Amino acid sequence: MEKRALLYEGKAKRVYGTDDENIVWLEYKDSATAFNGEKKADITGKGRLNNEITSLLFLKLQELGIQSHFVERISETEQLVKKVSIIPLEVVVRNVAAGSFSKRLGIKEGLPLSKPIVEFYYKDDALGDPLIIEAHIEELKLAEAEEVELLKKKALEVNGVLSKFFSALGIQLIDFKLEFGKDKNGEVLLADEISPDTCRLWDKNTNEKLDKDVFRRDLGNLTEAYENILTRLGGQQHV
Amino acid sequence: MEKRALLYEGKAKRVYGTDDENIVWLEYKDSATAFNGEKKADITGKGRLNNEITSLLFLKLQELGIQSHFVERISETEQLVKKVSIIPLEVVVRNVAAGSFSKRLGIKEGLPLSKPIVEFYYKDDALGDPLIIEAHIEELKLAEAEEVELLKKKALEVNGVLSKFFSALGIQLIDFKLEFGKDKNGEVLLADEISPDTCRLWDKNTNEKLDKDVFRRDLGNLTEAYENILTRLGGQQHV
Repeated sequence: MEKRALLYEGKAKRVYGTDDENIVWLEYKDSATAFNGEKKADITGKGRLNNEITSLLFLKLQELGIQSHFVERISETEQLVKKVSIIPLEVVVRNVAAGSFSKRLGIKEGLPLSKPIVEFYYKDDALGDPLIIEAHIEELKLAEAEEVELLKKKALEVNGVLSKFFSALGIQLIDFKLEFGKDKNGEVLLADEISPDTCRLWDKNTNEKLDKDVFRRDLGNLTEAYENILTRLGGQQHV
Repeated sequence: MEKRALLYEGKAKRVYGTDDENIVWLEYKDSATAFNGEKKADITGKGRLNNEITSLLFLKLQELGIQSHFVERISETEQLVKKVSIIPLEVVVRNVAAGSFSKRLGIKEGLPLSKPIVEFYYKDDALGDPLIIEAHIEELKLAEAEEVELLKKKALEVNGVLSKFFSALGIQLIDFKLEFGKDKNGEVLLADEISPDTCRLWDKNTNEKLDKDVFRRDLGNLTEAYENILTRLGGQQHV
């Protein structure tokens, strides 16, 4: 596979074309951003960690019957994925109150929810990725009503599988954000990444935060936290 | 009917008990507040205008088969209403993009929506009355799922009736906020007020704003705008 021109550069990844029009080449960057880009840092090794963790998680999901855009890991910081057109929605699943959810509703962080909650945020940096309701999605024509139902169903499926998987590794999956895209046939595929940048992961025994909140809230060493996750997932230590 | 002790004082109204345990006595105040109480003013005549307008609108709704807590107007600034326990949800119906909706979604103010949209906000001053989704309502036990459906249905009914009614008076009903309460039998009743404090009302020909945005955005004389609405509703001028 041949790497071609840069197609897009996001906050955490660069996307390049390849000689296969249906495949793009992702490069994970070492940059950390939070609060809609207001807080920024370069953290050596973060790109590698998110690439390795995402690759392992997408492979695990594939094993368990949940398809995604993931094709293969090609280096410590790179992977090949199917080219999709991203649906501009952040699909968030929550098992335990935390972060913006706790602030919005006045529910103490750490309180388990009576059942998993799916939320949609409008992926729009200029608007600050606001929470939206299904009627907004329809009005903005971001997705059809049936697609919204499909996204919810898929997100809850991923939650079921990942919660169990992480739990066996001593990690509680508090909440996470997914993105989906449509391939050339219009099929909706899980896309983007699944990493400590996009999940809240707490040690089951100590409640230690092993995710981007370490960066957001200055709780310690981010790469140590991410290495902890990678190690538990059985990923290779950096040598 | 005898007025008894003050039960509750809100930003715009005082609620007193009466000698009938099922009826309370509302007194509309002259205070104007916006942005969750950050902007405040005393505007002589505002209490009268909102009491008169709300009384006329609840009577009109009753005529057209939509019940509410309204019992009767008893003075320029007072009315009797059925005692209800307020459901802590602001039920907003929107016909045209404006205000926080336009800001949240990046839709230009004044753009008609493809169909009316119902939104729920969590009535909680400390949290700033945030937009919430139905799963949040369920998690917070603010209302049962069937009640949420009922609130939506009732809100859209009110919208149908009021849009038509205002339109005949040369006024476009842009959006409005309703509150509902439960009476002693658990019956869900339309409550609170319907006034230029809780509706966006634009002159159909000039798009002149005849509602609280006059105060929020310092667009001119609030009582003149509200008098304009009261006059068109056939209400008595103040003498």
